[in-house]
Amino acid sequence: MDLPPEKIIQSIDWRYLRDALTPEEAFDRLVNSQENRAEQEHRVIQKGVKAYSTAGWLGLTDQQILQTIEEVKASGLDCFKMKVGGGIDFDRKRMAFLRDAIGTDALLMTDANQLWGVDEAIDYMKQLAEFRPHWIEEPTARDDVFGFQRIAEALQPLGIGVATGEQVPSPVIFKQMLMQQAIQFCQIDATRLAGVQDVLAVILMADKFGIPVCPHGGGIGLCNMIVHYALWDQICVSGPSRGQLVEYLNFLQDGVFLNPVAMKDGAYQTPAAAGWGLEMEEEFVRDHTYPTGSVWQGREASGSITFVA
Amino acid sequence: MDLPPEKIIQSIDWRYLRDALTPEEAFDRLVNSQENRAEQEHRVIQKGVKAYSTAGWLGLTDQQILQTIEEVKASGLDCFKMKVGGGIDFDRKRMAFLRDAIGTDALLMTDANQLWGVDEAIDYMKQLAEFRPHWIEEPTARDDVFGFQRIAEALQPLGIGVATGEQVPSPVIFKQMLMQQAIQFCQIDATRLAGVQDVLAVILMADKFGIPVCPHGGGIGLCNMIVHYALWDQICVSGPSRGQLVEYLNFLQDGVFLNPVAMKDGAYQTPAAAGWGLEMEEEFVRDHTYPTGSVWQGREASGSITFVA
Repeated sequence: MDLPPEKIIQSIDWRYLRDALTPEEAFDRLVNSQENRAEQEHRVIQKGVKAYSTAGWLGLTDQQILQTIEEVKASGLDCFKMKVGGGIDFDRKRMAFLRDAIGTDALLMTDANQLWGVDEAIDYMKQLAEFRPHWIEEPTARDDVFGFQRIAEALQPLGIGVATGEQVPSPVIFKQMLMQQAIQFCQIDATRLAGVQDVLAVILMADKFGIPVCPHGGGIGLCNMIVHYALWDQICVSGPSRGQLVEYLNFLQDGVFLNPVAMKDGAYQTPAAAGWGLEMEEEFVRDHTYPTGSVWQGREASGSITFVA
Repeated sequence: MDLPPEKIIQSIDWRYLRDALTPEEAFDRLVNSQENRAEQEHRVIQKGVKAYSTAGWLGLTDQQILQTIEEVKASGLDCFKMKVGGGIDFDRKRMAFLRDAIGTDALLMTDANQLWGVDEAIDYMKQLAEFRPHWIEEPTARDDVFGFQRIAEALQPLGIGVATGEQVPSPVIFKQMLMQQAIQFCQIDATRLAGVQDVLAVILMADKFGIPVCPHGGGIGLCNMIVHYALWDQICVSGPSRGQLVEYLNFLQDGVFLNPVAMKDGAYQTPAAAGWGLEMEEEFVRDHTYPTGSVWQGREASGSITFVA
């Protein structure tokens, strides 16, 4: 957080990014954002970064979804995501159900996990528009910039934004998505790109093109990591008022990590421990070590391969 | 070669490709191209598929380049590629030298191996335009479709085409490159994509958008494989008259493969053996097996790791 702007700039590989953002411009933007730094830092650390969670998993029953919504609400969250792509009739019914359950004003996001082609995505989402999805996430292949651009243009009049990033394989794809306004929400992932410096580059580009950074969480440890990127974005780069939403899932925290992420009033609490917060509980590691751990007992492979501890 | 059109279409994953080419349209195109099939097959098998080779490797001296050109010419080839990016003064001097050595009429291609950013590529190539490069290969990052589009537009008035593909990571990137005319030469690779069906899809899309398929060769065995794709393209899909050029490098063939690729009058001879032609000589395999082979003797790792045969 306190790394000076010149060190940030030096850490990034600018070779393919200069047509979107030059290191000089990025440096100036970072320096300018320091003007409000103390105030922004105080405000963000006090409030934390706003979170959302998925309530509408495809495999859940209606009753299980209601229960999940209650759990999510108990943490103070008021924005919810659902998976789509289960067939238009099923999705319309489920989305009506979810919209009813969360109320008219709550944000409701949709996620297709790259299930559709470009035209298919547009047709499909038009049929879900009446339930006012805030965004459609991964409507098509992760690297189809022109496809995303077409989808974004088609859905813009309906008030539906396009989100992607959890599987975007390079900063160059992010660059194009941002320059072309092919996405309205930039979902950086903590581990998909080549390293921290690539993620910083994407956050800086998103800032320039006015696209809110809404990090992807989920897999074990991801939420612990993304809160740090979100804090850097909202304190040092674009500020907290772009409508950023950070994904949160309430599993694999307590009993797993020494410093589990904490949610309060619908926001990630700012971690106090040094580092990513990925150190695991000794007991959890012992139980999950293959093949000696307790969770592996009775699960040995049935083939001829044997493992020796 | 004799797989019927319906089987080809069934083998391809169309999910993300339909906005460029539908399976129905691809089927019709394949059926239509069968009208001239017998004649095309006869002509292509007689003549082989036209090849080009690299003479201007960055590490070579002028004298070595002249020698390489002579070797390449001895196989009947009349198109030559050179690496660029060694600095504009060096490249201008070397390109003048190569143009002089191969003559005014020979095609001369350039290859930057993704060295540049977008604007840098445009500026650089403008300074090489007077030597009439046929194409610039990989001017920037492999997945920068918008970048390639800008480069192609800027270089089109200078008569320089843009080529890429050897590192394109998905058919979706190829789709965009082809739909947007961001490349003028489609360099499929035999092993980069997920499999044969993805390469067939790219060849079919290139055909629709009128872009010649110029496969990438080089690494061990690649030339043996790409000749099959080139033959399929030129016999069953787009025909032989699009200006296709197939990369050829005269190393790692004799003494390596049981059925080395053969060059005659500047064209790949059509392989007669079944399969990809990748079966290796027993002696070559024995000599290169680690760590017992003769090429590894005296090259043991100096650390503490030991290998047991």
